Amino acid sequence: MNKLIIFHIIGWILNFEAGFMVLPLIVAAIYKEQSGFAFLIAIGLCLLFGIPMSLIKPTSSHFYAKEGFITVALGWIVLSLFGALPFFISREIPSYIDALFEIVSGFTTTGSSILSDVEALSYCMLFWRSFSHWIGGMGVLVFILSILPLAGGENIHFMRAESPGPSVEKLVPRIKTSSKMLYTIYFGMTLLMILLLLLGKMPLFDTLTLTFGTAGTGGFSVKNSGLADYTYYQQTVITIFMFLFGVNFNFYYLILLRKFKAAFKSEEVRWYFLIFSGAILLVSLNTGGFKGFFSSIHHAAFQVSSIMTTTGYSTLDYNQWPTFSKTILVLLMFIGACAGSTGGGIKVSRIVILFKSIGKELSYLLHKRSIKVLKFEGKKIQHETMRSINTYFVTYTFIFIASLLIISLDNFDFTSTFTAIAATINNVGPGLEAVGPTGNFGGFSDLSTLVMTFDMLIGRLEIFPILLLFTPDTWKK
Amino acid sequence: MNKLIIFHIIGWILNFEAGFMVLPLIVAAIYKEQSGFAFLIAIGLCLLFGIPMSLIKPTSSHFYAKEGFITVALGWIVLSLFGALPFFISREIPSYIDALFEIVSGFTTTGSSILSDVEALSYCMLFWRSFSHWIGGMGVLVFILSILPLAGGENIHFMRAESPGPSVEKLVPRIKTSSKMLYTIYFGMTLLMILLLLLGKMPLFDTLTLTFGTAGTGGFSVKNSGLADYTYYQQTVITIFMFLFGVNFNFYYLILLRKFKAAFKSEEVRWYFLIFSGAILLVSLNTGGFKGFFSSIHHAAFQVSSIMTTTGYSTLDYNQWPTFSKTILVLLMFIGACAGSTGGGIKVSRIVILFKSIGKELSYLLHKRSIKVLKFEGKKIQHETMRSINTYFVTYTFIFIASLLIISLDNFDFTSTFTAIAATINNVGPGLEAVGPTGNFGGFSDLSTLVMTFDMLIGRLEIFPILLLFTPDTWKK
Repeated sequence: MNKLIIFHIIGWILNFEAGFMVLPLIVAAIYKEQSGFAFLIAIGLCLLFGIPMSLIKPTSSHFYAKEGFITVALGWIVLSLFGALPFFISREIPSYIDALFEIVSGFTTTGSSILSDVEALSYCMLFWRSFSHWIGGMGVLVFILSILPLAGGENIHFMRAESPGPSVEKLVPRIKTSSKMLYTIYFGMTLLMILLLLLGKMPLFDTLTLTFGTAGTGGFSVKNSGLADYTYYQQTVITIFMFLFGVNFNFYYLILLRKFKAAFKSEEVRWYFLIFSGAILLVSLNTGGFKGFFSSIHHAAFQVSSIMTTTGYSTLDYNQWPTFSKTILVLLMFIGACAGSTGGGIKVSRIVILFKSIGKELSYLLHKRSIKVLKFEGKKIQHETMRSINTYFVTYTFIFIASLLIISLDNFDFTSTFTAIAATINNVGPGLEAVGPTGNFGGFSDLSTLVMTFDMLIGRLEIFPILLLFTPDTWKK
Repeated sequence: MNKLIIFHIIGWILNFEAGFMVLPLIVAAIYKEQSGFAFLIAIGLCLLFGIPMSLIKPTSSHFYAKEGFITVALGWIVLSLFGALPFFISREIPSYIDALFEIVSGFTTTGSSILSDVEALSYCMLFWRSFSHWIGGMGVLVFILSILPLAGGENIHFMRAESPGPSVEKLVPRIKTSSKMLYTIYFGMTLLMILLLLLGKMPLFDTLTLTFGTAGTGGFSVKNSGLADYTYYQQTVITIFMFLFGVNFNFYYLILLRKFKAAFKSEEVRWYFLIFSGAILLVSLNTGGFKGFFSSIHHAAFQVSSIMTTTGYSTLDYNQWPTFSKTILVLLMFIGACAGSTGGGIKVSRIVILFKSIGKELSYLLHKRSIKVLKFEGKKIQHETMRSINTYFVTYTFIFIASLLIISLDNFDFTSTFTAIAATINNVGPGLEAVGPTGNFGGFSDLSTLVMTFDMLIGRLEIFPILLLFTPDTWKK
């Protein structure tokens, strides 16, 4: 294994993290908050390790898939370990395990919180929490590598490991150009959303933090009431942008290239829209009696958009909804957003492909010799893709079950336990009952908190990079 | 499609069902119960349709996999439609949909009941309920075809469709000999259990009904208190036999052939035993404080044996257990018993093979070119087997989700809704909360009752035979 290049890249991750922390430091300066010192110390620690490591010169620029997975997994872990420092140093989150949970929840764009009173946090900490969503949303390593003049150009391995979805299509011959395009879209949409919220008279601090949380499909809010107290206009803007950030970014890429036909032919985006609209319709009808029909549609659209894109904001306590609507939300947690978006979950494309494989089996049972070709987005699904999707689904289930067993030791009710894992492994944020919109994740044991921290990373990096860290075979010469 | 042969076989199913109903008729005669007339009428109706249909002479004895699936699916549906008649005609279960649920629960060896007061049922009805477990346990069609002098000898297609597990190994060259051996084991073990319970001074009626329920891994009891009021000896005999009927019958077959080494080398049986013992240990430790340690082990063993083999008897209300133990029970519902046993669930062999496929994927990610060969029971797993297990798992999940959505309309809590489906699709019997050991399935709407009836059939026949009935391609010329 090319260890030197791994050290080198992780060094750069820490340097960049120090740079990211300058923003909350500025926030602390503006609001004259003492906690700003925690960021100064954390920046110092990041650079203390980051600079020497980034100066390591790799003797070879050879870089295989294996190194790609390991670097991404270790990179995210290091990013989180240092990112938790400001919370811990400032004592605003006294337990380091809790602080780690909180920042992993941030970077992985989950949005689950161990805090029962977010308003007690200083502005700079609230800013860091929400900013971590925006950083994590589009992937840290791909971002760094799109800027860094790293030799080799085999960044496709990072993109494979860090980008959500069953397979990365090469948009343009050179991955660096392609990822720069994606970041342009990400930045552009973020700016547009900030503008629209400011036009709706939302305070600047709320605008920035909520936009970060929306763009990354994160979900940390800055008020104890979640998003309940914002205006209908503001909530509607957020609903729309949550939906938009859950769309496969290839769609926007094609739009920018003026390939409208190709964009709107995307099977995944069509299914995403169909499930999205269907869910809103069913939830609106089911909750219709609650507050009047228009209000029902508004809140159904917000909650469906929030849960399906795995953002996790809420405008009301959907624990009060009928079981049917709650079940729809739980299912949406698992489905998740499109591949190639900032959202989590299993991803619409995987679900659609898995569903199609049933038809193939039925046809096989009827006529043993017929070979039905499975297609997705107009292309034949390769045997490797199919196998990897199947294994993803199986591994996902096994990790879910193992987590369920460990967390059930805390003796919460079954629904809370089940949805706590659903909410973390799918990077959603809130679940039902004790971990619902009005609850939080503070009541779990340290062991459970660590398990859910692990699940969030597993969910964000789509299992295998993290799992390979624990495979003895990885570390063999 | 060879429709004549399908009619012919279904005719024979009805004739046999009439024969089966003679037993509860005798019970009614002994207890001098009026409800016996319901059996007389039902027998008449079975023969009215059965005799003419069985007289149809198939012009061709050609029989393909497709016909096998369709015959098994239709056979089980017809068996259930007529089997529900005695409950309905006698008005002991006034709703036909409820009566159908009850008998499907019987034949599929589920054991879920819509009755809140089983003791209100007449003896002949209780007997019919429990007897249906025994009939369904080893498969109706395979039984009939092992007796009937049907031409063609392509009964392997029935066995494939009706026997639980990922693939039927040819035990002996001729399937008829093999299925006769399996029935001999089934009969022998049933007789042994009856003997042991009678020695433990259990009344004859209870002995027969509970043995039928154990042998078929069904779970209908004849008392409102379930199995709580029987002696420790009696409960222990049932614990042991539930476990034994959950073992792959190939194991006993090999034992009978004196191939002890081969028998004990069975990977599936080993894993079954390991999961079984592990679960008992964990549940005993977790519930240890409840009634003292010996009692904890006793009840843990009983409940684990009952749920893992998907029988569904209970000696206590495990709703009162801590969440960890309840979670273990829920997981055991999904795992289920061995393939080739009378138990339900996903089956230990499928779980083990799915788990192994994760290792293969990890190895593939590390060294793209290596092809790791997956083995089970010492043999290479064929590509078709792997694909069919994956598709089984995916289809199972989709049906589970669709059922969850429909049943959640009844607005039970999430845990009750989730475990109601887990309990029916895995042919277990009871779930948690409202459908727990002290609850029943009587509170659901007709729609939900029908969905769960469908799920029980889907679970027993392992999805595809039933699903093919709804595939338009099946009915094309």
